[in-house]
Amino acid sequence: MTEGKPVLEVCLSPALLHLYDTKGAIVVIIDIFRATSTMTAALHNGAKCIIPVASVQECIELGNSIPGSITAGERDGKVADGLQHGNSPLEYPAEFISGKTLVLTTTNGTRLLHMVQDAHEIVIGSFLNLSVLSDYLLAQGRKVLLGCASWKDKFNLEDTLFAGAVIDKVQHAFDINCDASRAAKHLYDAAKGKELIEFLKNSSHYRRLSAFGLEHDMTYCATPDLHPVVPRLQGQEIVIAG
Amino acid sequence: MTEGKPVLEVCLSPALLHLYDTKGAIVVIIDIFRATSTMTAALHNGAKCIIPVASVQECIELGNSIPGSITAGERDGKVADGLQHGNSPLEYPAEFISGKTLVLTTTNGTRLLHMVQDAHEIVIGSFLNLSVLSDYLLAQGRKVLLGCASWKDKFNLEDTLFAGAVIDKVQHAFDINCDASRAAKHLYDAAKGKELIEFLKNSSHYRRLSAFGLEHDMTYCATPDLHPVVPRLQGQEIVIAG
Repeated sequence: MTEGKPVLEVCLSPALLHLYDTKGAIVVIIDIFRATSTMTAALHNGAKCIIPVASVQECIELGNSIPGSITAGERDGKVADGLQHGNSPLEYPAEFISGKTLVLTTTNGTRLLHMVQDAHEIVIGSFLNLSVLSDYLLAQGRKVLLGCASWKDKFNLEDTLFAGAVIDKVQHAFDINCDASRAAKHLYDAAKGKELIEFLKNSSHYRRLSAFGLEHDMTYCATPDLHPVVPRLQGQEIVIAG
Repeated sequence: MTEGKPVLEVCLSPALLHLYDTKGAIVVIIDIFRATSTMTAALHNGAKCIIPVASVQECIELGNSIPGSITAGERDGKVADGLQHGNSPLEYPAEFISGKTLVLTTTNGTRLLHMVQDAHEIVIGSFLNLSVLSDYLLAQGRKVLLGCASWKDKFNLEDTLFAGAVIDKVQHAFDINCDASRAAKHLYDAAKGKELIEFLKNSSHYRRLSAFGLEHDMTYCATPDLHPVVPRLQGQEIVIAG
């Protein structure tokens, strides 16, 4: 019986976002390697807020205008010219980020976030907040779109795996008739029961980021529930929900 | 070692086709329920050729201009007004279709086929020709794009499952570094060893077509190797390759 249950769907790429009706929905932005993992970690470690921006230039300008802010972003695995920090959750421990505003530019996650126009709310998903995010979606009882940031619009394994992990936790409470959701759940079923990073080692993103020595980062990003907060977009800022 | 092997990728939706370089590639059009299954069956049963067209009107006009042709196509699970036959592989046994031209319009498969502009060649894939198509790809030794027709641009399970089945047969001979390919292979690994239709019963398309009483059709479309021919686009016509 699904009557009366809210609908849950998965969008596998920003290039498919127009196929989904996000009006009134909670949209979960998913960019596991590494934007949404970094946002979750930084807020849990005490960042005042995160401001996601599209370009390096915008990041620099906004950083200059906000006292005590940190500018961050990478291009091709390195801190972008003119910015201070990178896109690793491990760069933002409490002793560094607490009380500060993080102005962050990323390639994929930020773009998808800015594409969603009419949602009820936009929240941030990562393995780091898997359980608390799932509980949040269950508590709201509202239709959900799990939005994978993907890699330059191409399907990726890690974002879809996370969508499957959320579905594994919330499917009893939602009406799911979406093949992307079914595929995500199949992937998660294939991966669960062992370290998720083992499943993700054979993925395009793992291969690409490994070339920059970021294996430890990715293992961290694939670890559930290290940072149990739900980041939510409020105006132009991402803050902890509630 | 992947050095020297041609690249194989999977495109999960026509809306993502622009992300792939099809120049010089063999593009496999996949629309399991049911366009490419019907094309494969009709050619194996002796159809002279198949002419895929975008609209019902075009189908009628072309049918009128070709003596001995059959016009076919469905909209919402029924033969479209003005056409003679539907989109079921079971409608085209040898005693009916042998020697005739089939002018066919479908919602998804035909559209993707017409979107591909610069491929080396376009061939037709379905479970009905799985092994012979895979052998054909191996014999050509050329880069391959497996193109899922999907459902109105939304990811679907049956086309992706077929892509995984092809990968299962040819992966040793190709350089595969594409997460869509990996996901397709994971899906196929989850499905294989039992009747594929059992895996597909929990899919959007199965649910939709079941409402029209087409379960038997779909079981047929999910049965490997009933029609071992490789349909290939030649000009405006699809004929048996070789």
